[in-house]
Amino acid sequence: MRGQIMLFGDSITEQSFRPGGWGAALANAYCRQADVVLRGYAGYNTKWALFLLNHIFPLDSSKARIATTIFFGANDAALSGRTNERFHVPIEDYKQNLRKIVLHLKVIVWFQECSPTMLIVLITPPPFYGERRHEYLKSLLGENAPKLSERTNEVTGQYARACIETAKEMGVMSVDLWSKMQETDDWQNKFLIDGLHLTMEGNAIVYQEVIKVFNEAGLSADNMPFDFPNHSDIDAKNPEEAFQQKCFLMSHCGFVRDL
Amino acid sequence: MRGQIMLFGDSITEQSFRPGGWGAALANAYCRQADVVLRGYAGYNTKWALFLLNHIFPLDSSKARIATTIFFGANDAALSGRTNERFHVPIEDYKQNLRKIVLHLKVIVWFQECSPTMLIVLITPPPFYGERRHEYLKSLLGENAPKLSERTNEVTGQYARACIETAKEMGVMSVDLWSKMQETDDWQNKFLIDGLHLTMEGNAIVYQEVIKVFNEAGLSADNMPFDFPNHSDIDAKNPEEAFQQKCFLMSHCGFVRDL
Repeated sequence: MRGQIMLFGDSITEQSFRPGGWGAALANAYCRQADVVLRGYAGYNTKWALFLLNHIFPLDSSKARIATTIFFGANDAALSGRTNERFHVPIEDYKQNLRKIVLHLKVIVWFQECSPTMLIVLITPPPFYGERRHEYLKSLLGENAPKLSERTNEVTGQYARACIETAKEMGVMSVDLWSKMQETDDWQNKFLIDGLHLTMEGNAIVYQEVIKVFNEAGLSADNMPFDFPNHSDIDAKNPEEAFQQKCFLMSHCGFVRDL
Repeated sequence: MRGQIMLFGDSITEQSFRPGGWGAALANAYCRQADVVLRGYAGYNTKWALFLLNHIFPLDSSKARIATTIFFGANDAALSGRTNERFHVPIEDYKQNLRKIVLHLKVIVWFQECSPTMLIVLITPPPFYGERRHEYLKSLLGENAPKLSERTNEVTGQYARACIETAKEMGVMSVDLWSKMQETDDWQNKFLIDGLHLTMEGNAIVYQEVIKVFNEAGLSADNMPFDFPNHSDIDAKNPEEAFQQKCFLMSHCGFVRDL
């Protein structure tokens, strides 16, 4: 009966239900209206994400998907010829893979009567801070920590721009996290815990930017009905009435939304 | 492909994805293994919960439910003849309603091949702290705040014991939150934000107690496979292989678990 908000991405999505996480904040915002479904896969790039597409978003699903966030790029942007080369995806392939993911979701919308208006949001990778990343890897690996950085903020920025371009080209919404975070002084320490992943404040920025796009698209939780009556609408002496009204609506309209 | 962990309850469940919330902590613990589904309804008692049962847990669902927490009683225990009388459910009815909820879930397990081992966990209401509740209501309503408390810890304790008895009688697991919290000094301020709802530390206790029961039942996340390969198991030069193996398993076994 409730629609789903799908969070599809890499470790920054997988970790989004940790304390202060942006995924948990979304689940809380829609706690009576929609299900937030976590599909985050640490270490995944867009190339590997393609293998999951038919499983996570099958064409014959009857689930009503309200929105999907697509949040890859931090791994794709790993540098070729460095220690994390296995995650690297050339930038043109990254764009092409994002196009394939968006296209797949658009086909679902076209196929499924129950997802007539799924909002698709591409999120760029966050900025990268090499010094902190190096410190972190040194604390983990000691002398075995790689001397040359596995990523640079400059190259990650190229992937972020590629993500935004692809969103425009495909006619879907986007969040330019890479630029947004760098508007704040000391973003390197405020928003990044290990140079790559997000602090609670970094998570708050993701939530703030994603919910802004959701609201702009008319998907504010305030505009969406509860799946069952608010307790104040239930007459304690005759509770049946409130539930009959609601369930009548639901059984007649399938998925009900006031968009 | 992933199983579901259902959280069915009142406001203490509805709020469980707030920062530090026990629901979000569960979702994080099972971030690659299971979906935590929030079905919390503020103000609901077990009488009203019965109206939702067929909708939230339909008999003909094909979803694999791994576990369900049933967390009502804080509203049922509102005192008759006081301002929150409309929430009150007599204690024998509370027990009977819990029995009906558990029975419904047991019927689902019996009906559905895909949920052969759903764990059912009854959670008692937390303890109640009248002084703090009164302060809170006074800050909200001023002179209109009720002079007589809407609940007492003693009566809530009777409902907690009724919950534990019903769990034993029905052969399902339980968490005695009412007793557990009162083992800690200053539980009134440590665990309760307004005398009724939970602080972050209170949420941590719920998580700790629920995950303990889950682990005892063999539902530790460590014992459950990821739905898709860990990135370290993917050969960057031949990623197809890891996904083919995993998808072969999934398509042949339906819902795969190592229980």
